Amino acid sequence: MRAVDIIQAKRDGRALTAEEIRFFVDGVTAGTLPDYQASSLLMAIFLRGMTTEETARLTDAMVHSGVRVDLRDLPGVKVDKHSTGGVGDKTSLILAPVAAACGVPVPMMSGRGLGHTGGTLDKLESIPGFRVNLSLDEMKSALAKTGCAMIGQTAQIAPADKKLYALRDVTGTVESIPLISASIMSKKIAEGIDALVLDVKTGSGAFMKSEADSRRLAESLVAIGKASGVQTEAIITAMEAPLGRAVGNALEVIECLDVLKGGGPQDLVDVSVELAARMVVLGRVAGDLPAARDQVRRAIASGAGLDRFRQIIEVQGGDPKIVDDYGRLPHVPDRWTVAASRSGFVTALNAELVGRASVVLGAGRDRVEDPVDPAVGIMVVAKPGDEVRAGDPVLEIHFRDSARLEAAKRLTDQAITIGDAPPVPGRLIVGEVR
Amino acid sequence: MRAVDIIQAKRDGRALTAEEIRFFVDGVTAGTLPDYQASSLLMAIFLRGMTTEETARLTDAMVHSGVRVDLRDLPGVKVDKHSTGGVGDKTSLILAPVAAACGVPVPMMSGRGLGHTGGTLDKLESIPGFRVNLSLDEMKSALAKTGCAMIGQTAQIAPADKKLYALRDVTGTVESIPLISASIMSKKIAEGIDALVLDVKTGSGAFMKSEADSRRLAESLVAIGKASGVQTEAIITAMEAPLGRAVGNALEVIECLDVLKGGGPQDLVDVSVELAARMVVLGRVAGDLPAARDQVRRAIASGAGLDRFRQIIEVQGGDPKIVDDYGRLPHVPDRWTVAASRSGFVTALNAELVGRASVVLGAGRDRVEDPVDPAVGIMVVAKPGDEVRAGDPVLEIHFRDSARLEAAKRLTDQAITIGDAPPVPGRLIVGEVR
Repeated sequence: MRAVDIIQAKRDGRALTAEEIRFFVDGVTAGTLPDYQASSLLMAIFLRGMTTEETARLTDAMVHSGVRVDLRDLPGVKVDKHSTGGVGDKTSLILAPVAAACGVPVPMMSGRGLGHTGGTLDKLESIPGFRVNLSLDEMKSALAKTGCAMIGQTAQIAPADKKLYALRDVTGTVESIPLISASIMSKKIAEGIDALVLDVKTGSGAFMKSEADSRRLAESLVAIGKASGVQTEAIITAMEAPLGRAVGNALEVIECLDVLKGGGPQDLVDVSVELAARMVVLGRVAGDLPAARDQVRRAIASGAGLDRFRQIIEVQGGDPKIVDDYGRLPHVPDRWTVAASRSGFVTALNAELVGRASVVLGAGRDRVEDPVDPAVGIMVVAKPGDEVRAGDPVLEIHFRDSARLEAAKRLTDQAITIGDAPPVPGRLIVGEVR
Repeated sequence: MRAVDIIQAKRDGRALTAEEIRFFVDGVTAGTLPDYQASSLLMAIFLRGMTTEETARLTDAMVHSGVRVDLRDLPGVKVDKHSTGGVGDKTSLILAPVAAACGVPVPMMSGRGLGHTGGTLDKLESIPGFRVNLSLDEMKSALAKTGCAMIGQTAQIAPADKKLYALRDVTGTVESIPLISASIMSKKIAEGIDALVLDVKTGSGAFMKSEADSRRLAESLVAIGKASGVQTEAIITAMEAPLGRAVGNALEVIECLDVLKGGGPQDLVDVSVELAARMVVLGRVAGDLPAARDQVRRAIASGAGLDRFRQIIEVQGGDPKIVDDYGRLPHVPDRWTVAASRSGFVTALNAELVGRASVVLGAGRDRVEDPVDPAVGIMVVAKPGDEVRAGDPVLEIHFRDSARLEAAKRLTDQAITIGDAPPVPGRLIVGEVR
């Protein structure tokens, strides 16, 4: 088999065979396929597309580039959740302990923030002592103890994805539905789960800006999951404005604790409950969604979810006292209030710009290797729909460095739109694919 | 400027600016642009195409990657000819001395054979002592003496093309009209010519199999030539069967000498006269094509073309006695006759298969670095349209190695089609673009 023949086949619009795709992925993993051939094929895939069958083959080959974790010796239907990424998108820290408290084992492998979107691992690491880099044995042990493990991707999981992602990033081949699908699903399938709930974000602050593209991505992801024997379903949720009020690592942990204590912003509660309820159904703990939603709400109201989070923190080496004493979380003394420039209604709060401002403050990163500042971030005081008077606070910026504050303010100034009438409320949960 | 932005622009179908194209070509030439980014862009160009304007910009950037030879101190309108490559396509060795004999300065920079098509340099090098690797000064000196120089591409000419061609070869991005056009025309423009005649081959033995594709390529080449101030025109000629009767380096030299002596196969004479006549018009030696054709035929009939070829050989270090004594050219004693399997008419002789058989014998190469055997090759005894009886010779194979002979016979057996009725004669000169 010759790489150039495979490239030409895809270039000319032919579907690749399982053997051809394995040759490509194995060559990338082993380093025997030159980068210039891999990138030429990636561009041909980007422009010619892949059938669902080809994408499933690509995912399978990427899963087999590393180990597929075997969790069959642990009881229960193992369920994970994955989000395509948003701003203030912190639901994992709520739904993982809640689903576990409902009796669903949750082996959750998450990523770090990149670009304007945040990452679960960065948020967890703002809890002093919290270890996300568990070995597979430690992960199983944590799962057995608390019903939940929240860890990072290990080097053994889909190593081909790591190489391909780095190459896509520099060759203009990121925004491809088959390539995104295989990247996401190979890691999820390799972690040994039985079922998966996807939160596909849509809107200006999401990777997929249009509902049609978001739906196509959701359909692709669900089809691949099913082809690999993982029960998969997706909800499509709005990402025009930040989810909840907190953007920034420790700030988001506090907001999650508020939700687990029965408070917190309604949009964040709604998305978290919906995702957790779907995990509870897939995990065969509840028979249908209405029953599952009730069960999830009870787990929050009773404090069972909060207790479970406390246990998870403790088992993974973190300081469980942060649950009751937010002062133990990293924080900065300095605040800057962004005030309304006029009276009226907040009609839009651009999630991507708020996310970028948060990155500029130090809460996120543009390059994988950059460190993050756990304490800085942005609190949304007035959300879209809220009425404000000129001078009222809209955002509160938690900053460490005043030069960074100035750069962040330039972005937040553009992010806020105030109009005369309240905006037409959009749907939060836009659709589902199952 | 970032390479990834240029790649994304082309990927999304946008025309690249002159600055973007220069950034790409300069990066390739200097080695500062990684191959994986270059190949990703090449695939995007392959699939998205380029406007004529972009292709002209690409050509210009490739010309400027090296030196543009200045021949202005030599009198006359300097004219070259280029063929897109065929089997038995030896017209350069006829038309260069003939056009020079008519008074047109011909600075001819040619290539080597690759794949099933032959190359002018390999044919010339079958003449003992003939040097094709002249320096630019030696080239000018030869031009001043004989009105013609037949040389290879020097390292100073369009170095970006050399790198890009090597990358295209292994990344499935060869058969792209803009990339082919820029590759051909950058070398031709850099050699300092004023005018160019192109022979774009069409048919099963050509790079472009359909007349429509051949015409598109011809139009692209002519447009770029004009955009760069080189008067350019193209004829499109058939390449279904080998041109003439000889395929193989020394065998083709002999056939060219036959034509220069007033003999030779009619199809070879016709294409050579047509191309030479167009050079004579572009070189402003004749006022129109009919007059130019007469002048070319007279240069052959008078022996002026043959004399000029003798001088060219001598000035470039070759043995001029080969002109009158073919025994001084490399030759092999062994012949194998491929006989007609049945009586009837030769309806087809597949040029690509005959070309491949010739490569198998050693006359050509599949990799640029392979050596060629100047003596071996194939003589076509019965051309399409000829009547044969079972057992009559169709091909005569000149071979050195019997294992290679067997492999070549397997190809030639498939190349010959014999039917009951003579084939409908196709046109040899299919069209023109000017």
